[in-house]
Amino acid sequence: MRMYDIIENKRNGKELTGEEIEFFIKGYTDGIIPDYQASAFCMAVYFKGMTEKETVILTKAMANSGDIVDLSMFGNLSADKHSTGGVGDKTSLIVAPIVASLGAKVTKMSGRGLGHTGGTVDKLESIPGYKTTLSGKEFISQVKNVGMAIIGQSGNLTPADKKLYALRDVTATVDSIPLIVSSIMSKKIAAGSHNIVLDVKCGSGAFMKTLENAEILANEMVKIGKGCGRNTAALITDMDMPLGSAIGNSLEVIEAVKVLKGELDNDLKEVCVALASELISLVLSVPHNEAQKMVNDSIDSGKAYEKMKEWISAQGGDVSFIENTEKFPKAEYSCDILSEIDGYITSMDTEKIGLASVILGAGRECKEDSIDFSAGIMIYKKTGEKIYKGDKIATLFTNNKSSLEDAEKMYRSAACISAVKPEPKPLIYKVIR
Amino acid sequence: MRMYDIIENKRNGKELTGEEIEFFIKGYTDGIIPDYQASAFCMAVYFKGMTEKETVILTKAMANSGDIVDLSMFGNLSADKHSTGGVGDKTSLIVAPIVASLGAKVTKMSGRGLGHTGGTVDKLESIPGYKTTLSGKEFISQVKNVGMAIIGQSGNLTPADKKLYALRDVTATVDSIPLIVSSIMSKKIAAGSHNIVLDVKCGSGAFMKTLENAEILANEMVKIGKGCGRNTAALITDMDMPLGSAIGNSLEVIEAVKVLKGELDNDLKEVCVALASELISLVLSVPHNEAQKMVNDSIDSGKAYEKMKEWISAQGGDVSFIENTEKFPKAEYSCDILSEIDGYITSMDTEKIGLASVILGAGRECKEDSIDFSAGIMIYKKTGEKIYKGDKIATLFTNNKSSLEDAEKMYRSAACISAVKPEPKPLIYKVIR
Repeated sequence: MRMYDIIENKRNGKELTGEEIEFFIKGYTDGIIPDYQASAFCMAVYFKGMTEKETVILTKAMANSGDIVDLSMFGNLSADKHSTGGVGDKTSLIVAPIVASLGAKVTKMSGRGLGHTGGTVDKLESIPGYKTTLSGKEFISQVKNVGMAIIGQSGNLTPADKKLYALRDVTATVDSIPLIVSSIMSKKIAAGSHNIVLDVKCGSGAFMKTLENAEILANEMVKIGKGCGRNTAALITDMDMPLGSAIGNSLEVIEAVKVLKGELDNDLKEVCVALASELISLVLSVPHNEAQKMVNDSIDSGKAYEKMKEWISAQGGDVSFIENTEKFPKAEYSCDILSEIDGYITSMDTEKIGLASVILGAGRECKEDSIDFSAGIMIYKKTGEKIYKGDKIATLFTNNKSSLEDAEKMYRSAACISAVKPEPKPLIYKVIR
Repeated sequence: MRMYDIIENKRNGKELTGEEIEFFIKGYTDGIIPDYQASAFCMAVYFKGMTEKETVILTKAMANSGDIVDLSMFGNLSADKHSTGGVGDKTSLIVAPIVASLGAKVTKMSGRGLGHTGGTVDKLESIPGYKTTLSGKEFISQVKNVGMAIIGQSGNLTPADKKLYALRDVTATVDSIPLIVSSIMSKKIAAGSHNIVLDVKCGSGAFMKTLENAEILANEMVKIGKGCGRNTAALITDMDMPLGSAIGNSLEVIEAVKVLKGELDNDLKEVCVALASELISLVLSVPHNEAQKMVNDSIDSGKAYEKMKEWISAQGGDVSFIENTEKFPKAEYSCDILSEIDGYITSMDTEKIGLASVILGAGRECKEDSIDFSAGIMIYKKTGEKIYKGDKIATLFTNNKSSLEDAEKMYRSAACISAVKPEPKPLIYKVIR
């Protein structure tokens, strides 16, 4: 078998065989197939796509390129969620303790933030003492005892994807549905959970800007997840404005705690309840309305909040910060953004708002950048809300005073105010099962 | 400027700017842009094409990546011909002396054979003493004195094309019209001639199997040649059967000599007269019918034959072999192929026939293979000819006896014989000016 023929077959629009796809992934991971053939192949896939069958094989081949986490001891109870990334997206911090409190076994490996989107691992590291690295044994043991663990990506998981993604990133071949799907789903498959709920974000702050594209991606991911033998569902949720009010690491932890304490009843809570219900429905095989009732009960009864504390504590975090969020260090500098006119917020360029938080120190422009845990943005007025001249629409927080001016400019250019009230949009566009 | 954006722009179907194309070619030649970006770019070009403007810029950028031969001393008289490659194609050996005898200055750099097609340099090396390498000074001086020289490709001509072609060859990105055209034409532009006639072969032995594709390529090459400021024309000629009767290096030299001596009046002569007339019409700015008359006169009067001897001699070759072609060493083994039935030759798979000659030792499977100059095939019956059982349709020649069996099998499977006389096809399909 020759890689040349595999490239040519894909270029000519043929469906590749399992042998061909496995030959490519194995050869590329082992360094036998060179980057220049892999990048030509990816560009051919960009133009010619892949069938569902091909994508399942590709996903499995990438998952099998490294270690596979063995969660068989949890039977059908293992649960994972994945978000395609957004601004103010702290749903993992809320959904995981809810479903763990209801008997699911949450085994989540998360990433760090890059560019305009944050990462769960960074958020958790803002809690003093929290360990984002556990050994395999510690990880499994904590999930057994507590029902959940959230750690950073570790071990030799999907080396094929790591190598291929780095290549796609510099060859303009990222935007290909089968390549995106196999990249995401191979990691989920290797991470081992039997039940997977995907949160596909859609809008100005998301990778998928349009509902049409988000639906294509979500449908494909659910198909491929099922094709790989996992219970998979996806929600398409709005990212045309930040989720909740807080952007920035400790600010988001605080908001998550408030949702679990039942102190907030906002868009963030609604999305979390929907995600948690979907996951519980899969894990426990209960109808969706029953799952939703269980989820609401878990929050209302304080069980989910208790589970959060148990989890943070088990993983080395100082629970007193959860019990009293006032203990989180505050940023030295802040700046209120006041509206200069009467009107409505008509749109929020959410990617720009994410970038404003990066300017303040809450995120990374490149992998090597360090993070200011207390930096970020609190948002008081979101799309559709009536505002009057002088109203506080947001507050910026940072320890780097010089960043305030640029961040304010960026925020103001992102949050459009005009006289016309915009049409309201749904928060959850669609559920794909 | 970033290569990433250039790949993405092309992937999205945008017309690239001159700066972008030049940035790519310079960066790639200098080793700053890696192979994996260049191959993704080529695949994007495969799918999205290039406009005439882009292809002219790409061609010039590749020509300018290395040395450019300065032929300004010859004014508008410099002349070059190029064939896209075929089987039995010895036209350069005939056309060059004809046009040189009429005042053109032929400065030709030729290649070696690979796969089923032969190369002019190999054919000339079958003449004892012939030097295929001349210094720049010797080359120009010979063209001044004799009117022509044919050497192997030398110097640092189009390094960008060398590097890019090698990459395309292993990434399934050869079959792209703008990339093919820029590769061929950049070499012609760098080789310096003011007048260029292209022989675009079409049929089972050619790179372009269909007339439609050959026309697209020929049209594009003529446009790009003109766009680069050269007088350019193209003939689309048949390669659905070998050209002439001889395949193999010294066998082809002998056939060329016979045409120039006026001893043959076959398809080979017809194509050579057409190519030479086209070139003379460009070089001397005379009408085509007048150019054709001059060409026929040159052959009939023996002027072209004398020019051939003058040229071979000037370049170190032993002219006695031209004067008496019986002197060429004969292959030790030969085998006549006799028809087993009555009928007509209905088709000749010309690529297969070329490969049969490679089996006999007349060509190369890979670059490193050596050549048996006396090996090859003499063809007595071609497509459309009536044959009777027992007729000799071809003879195979080789110094490697064990190759005869395979070559005969290959030849027999390539030359189809049936009862139905096939429709005759034109030899010269089209002239594009």
